[in-house]
Amino acid sequence: MSKKIVIVGGVAGGATTATKLRRLDEQAEIIMYERGEFISFANCGLPYHISGVIEERSKLLVQTVKGMETRYNIKIRNYTEVKSIHPENKKITAQNLKTGETFEDSYDVLILSPGAKPIVPPIEGLRSRNVFKLRNIPDMDKIKSYLDEKKPGNAVVIGGGFIGLEMAENLAEAGLSVTIVEKSTQVMGPVDLEMAAIVEDHLRANGVELILGDGIQDVLDNGSEVLLESGKSLKSDIIILAIGVMPENGLAKDAGLELGERGGIKVNGHLQTSDESIYALGDAIEVTDFVNGKPTMIPLAWPANRQAHIVAHHINGKDITYPGTMGTSIVKVFDLTAAVTGNNEKTLKRLGIPYEAVHIHPLSHAGYYPGAEAISLKLIFDKKTGKIFGAQAVGKDGVDKRIDVISTAIKGGLTVHELQELELAYAPPFSSAKDPVNMAGYVAANIMDGMFETIHWHEVDELIANGGYLVDVRTDKECANGCIAGSVNIPLDELRDRLDELPKDKTILITCQVGLRGYLASRILSQNGFRVKNLTGGFKTYSMYKKYHQ
Amino acid sequence: MSKKIVIVGGVAGGATTATKLRRLDEQAEIIMYERGEFISFANCGLPYHISGVIEERSKLLVQTVKGMETRYNIKIRNYTEVKSIHPENKKITAQNLKTGETFEDSYDVLILSPGAKPIVPPIEGLRSRNVFKLRNIPDMDKIKSYLDEKKPGNAVVIGGGFIGLEMAENLAEAGLSVTIVEKSTQVMGPVDLEMAAIVEDHLRANGVELILGDGIQDVLDNGSEVLLESGKSLKSDIIILAIGVMPENGLAKDAGLELGERGGIKVNGHLQTSDESIYALGDAIEVTDFVNGKPTMIPLAWPANRQAHIVAHHINGKDITYPGTMGTSIVKVFDLTAAVTGNNEKTLKRLGIPYEAVHIHPLSHAGYYPGAEAISLKLIFDKKTGKIFGAQAVGKDGVDKRIDVISTAIKGGLTVHELQELELAYAPPFSSAKDPVNMAGYVAANIMDGMFETIHWHEVDELIANGGYLVDVRTDKECANGCIAGSVNIPLDELRDRLDELPKDKTILITCQVGLRGYLASRILSQNGFRVKNLTGGFKTYSMYKKYHQ
Repeated sequence: MSKKIVIVGGVAGGATTATKLRRLDEQAEIIMYERGEFISFANCGLPYHISGVIEERSKLLVQTVKGMETRYNIKIRNYTEVKSIHPENKKITAQNLKTGETFEDSYDVLILSPGAKPIVPPIEGLRSRNVFKLRNIPDMDKIKSYLDEKKPGNAVVIGGGFIGLEMAENLAEAGLSVTIVEKSTQVMGPVDLEMAAIVEDHLRANGVELILGDGIQDVLDNGSEVLLESGKSLKSDIIILAIGVMPENGLAKDAGLELGERGGIKVNGHLQTSDESIYALGDAIEVTDFVNGKPTMIPLAWPANRQAHIVAHHINGKDITYPGTMGTSIVKVFDLTAAVTGNNEKTLKRLGIPYEAVHIHPLSHAGYYPGAEAISLKLIFDKKTGKIFGAQAVGKDGVDKRIDVISTAIKGGLTVHELQELELAYAPPFSSAKDPVNMAGYVAANIMDGMFETIHWHEVDELIANGGYLVDVRTDKECANGCIAGSVNIPLDELRDRLDELPKDKTILITCQVGLRGYLASRILSQNGFRVKNLTGGFKTYSMYKKYHQ
Repeated sequence: MSKKIVIVGGVAGGATTATKLRRLDEQAEIIMYERGEFISFANCGLPYHISGVIEERSKLLVQTVKGMETRYNIKIRNYTEVKSIHPENKKITAQNLKTGETFEDSYDVLILSPGAKPIVPPIEGLRSRNVFKLRNIPDMDKIKSYLDEKKPGNAVVIGGGFIGLEMAENLAEAGLSVTIVEKSTQVMGPVDLEMAAIVEDHLRANGVELILGDGIQDVLDNGSEVLLESGKSLKSDIIILAIGVMPENGLAKDAGLELGERGGIKVNGHLQTSDESIYALGDAIEVTDFVNGKPTMIPLAWPANRQAHIVAHHINGKDITYPGTMGTSIVKVFDLTAAVTGNNEKTLKRLGIPYEAVHIHPLSHAGYYPGAEAISLKLIFDKKTGKIFGAQAVGKDGVDKRIDVISTAIKGGLTVHELQELELAYAPPFSSAKDPVNMAGYVAANIMDGMFETIHWHEVDELIANGGYLVDVRTDKECANGCIAGSVNIPLDELRDRLDELPKDKTILITCQVGLRGYLASRILSQNGFRVKNLTGGFKTYSMYKKYHQ
């Protein structure tokens, strides 16, 4: 007899599972419930229609109800909300939101793909008519209408995560003056402080005002003023709430399904909830961090899509598991790209996992070919085993490629030594004979092999304050344009002749512009009997953060 | 006592080895011989200065003799040709090409990085003054002067490999009418016939005339006429010889070092020649094919760079080996990019290695975000184990990224199933929730898992001629714009209702535009008891080649 499969939620995870189920089984009865009007819309594209970068709204409607019903022979009940689940007799109660009618349905297998909802702090003023969040097509339509009708001049975006950054960019593109308010001390939580600083710099360069380390205290005067915790006040013709999301776990909770600490629906490797007839996937579930093995919540499109595959295949009898999420993610911020894969320093520190980090700033392709742009690339790894924990990259060109390559390397269990060996495609318009990823591998491997020791941007000031001897091996001219306070300048090409100027009784700290000449200097000095440490990423990494945080 | 290391050849492999040696050992005596004026120049950038895309010639001179001597404490003897090696007493004989003086030098370790030279067929007319090859800065200067002085109107480029294609593009950019003559039936040997056809199409669309399957018979009238083997004659104001390269093995051969079948210098895993005091690297050596393990010759920049690392480290006592070359390579052809990694079908066929191939044509990023371009991606794998043999991609955007990811996957030993699991960075400007590489993995895994069987573009005509029943499941409208002769049109969305029109007694062949709807159709039919095979890559792959080869 054919199975009856009921899916709750018709956007990314739900709709993808439905079509995969049909491909695997022509006979199954598949019913998909969606409380909104739209199924399978392009979630991630919403901010770009607000600015008009994506001109046609219809392009965001990937699948229509009718189109999907016809092609995949699926029953779709949109405008219909599942109100409760009764696992004991495998039934759900649903309500038609247009007629108000409530009814029951049964299932053999139930799939929960309810997503996550924007966090709204308990502030009365956030109910004002100029306050918006962005989760779906109707949300987008409302923002766009408001822009068209009221022509707001300035916008306050609350939250500097992916959606906050994308909204800031698109509102700025639409001509508004935008201020981002972010409670933590950096935007874009998945990257580390100094990497976020590049993004922050770029936002400011594009006219976006940035207020970090300050939260929203109140919204006054029908939403026209945002009062911050610091007491600072902002004019706000329009307010976008993008603090973050929380899992839509109500249905699961009420049905007695197990939840994780932060409210995500708990699932096993096959993505079954604590009731084996009920699967869950997407933004609502707790997943395993692929790198560190701990439970986490990573609301992104790629995992939802992959999980749909796992769920559909497991239901059809395949022994398949989801290996966890790396959290590879990327954001465009004006003409800058920031991307990350795996764990960042903050996470590893929190978990007490020892790590080493290197910074490099290579060009996206051969410097002599037009259009090459520097990429700031950070690689984090286990100094003992060479295991790659994660990577972060920011730049104007080729950032996505390098993060995808490193993500693939992590998946393949490659070490930093093996990053050196990746045979990546080279011609001048695309890369260098030594690709940035190779280069990161060389630097990390050199540290593991004891070729040089390293210090980090955040250690420098204290080391100098405590009497550290820092040599800047750039040219005089470069140093004149800015250098680390307290450093001594000896250009690399003069170093061999000026060894007698250096103290033999203390560790010599070395810096240059990006770390490469510092490495050469370290090699010269250590082979001449000096103790040396090189500043990874050089003056460039040091100043990324210092520029705005003196 | 410090080692005396002599390097023959000061371009990519030689210069890189020299600087790595110095970083590893401050004390070693390092002497680098280069018969030309320039060391460490940007080989791969030469074609782009000819068109003016790279405006400043000086940008191509990566390192000057003086700059490198100072920074790395290396003795550089340019304009000096090593004429012979005397392994028995570890000496070389060299000649100063400016003074004519001949002298001896000794070595503890010798490194050969002589490169490869353009192949010149024994045709008298190729000595004409308008015939050029492109190997180094002086070659480039000569071509550029000739263009400036003689203002040739039309160019004949002999050879459709990487250099031929890049020269054709840059000469066209410089305003010349360009004809490429290629002896084999396709350009760009490292990709397969149907993938090369996309490049050929694009060359023609950009005004480059292409003559395939025809070789040069003679050059007449002081180089102003090229006579082809077919009897065809071409006007040639300028002729570029880019047939291919052969290893510069003269020195090695005369010294009695072992050579491979095709003349490459034979080396072991540490890149030592048959004399363990003599290393060799770069375009002159024979390497192991990383995928199939056979000896091969792959003259590219990445391997030379990596080999420099191996040589320098092995000389300094590290137990390090070179694991072979994958041949990852890439070329820009106007606004198209073609790239490849690993083995192609031709190679696997020649070696008798069984394989399966899939074609897909996904967009480079979310279709609703501006600028998305189709990528034609071919994945070749072992149907039994899922091992990835190679991949090829052609398109206007994001080609380099996908090939680099697959190259990394091959390096990590990932199977096609694991390509599905690669967690690649997604936001609408960069990819889709299911990246093209994921998608290739899904298609390949589906074949391995028996979800559908496949036929290939080159099998279709014969199958139909032998009575095969081919159903095109695109819409009527699409089919009206061109379809495979002999196909029957049943749109996918009508298929479930028209099953009775299909023969139960024969295998039904399916096609659509790119293979996706064909897959859905295959699933519907096979679950309804039909025997089915789907055309991989659909009508698009079929017509890539057929368009110009009826």
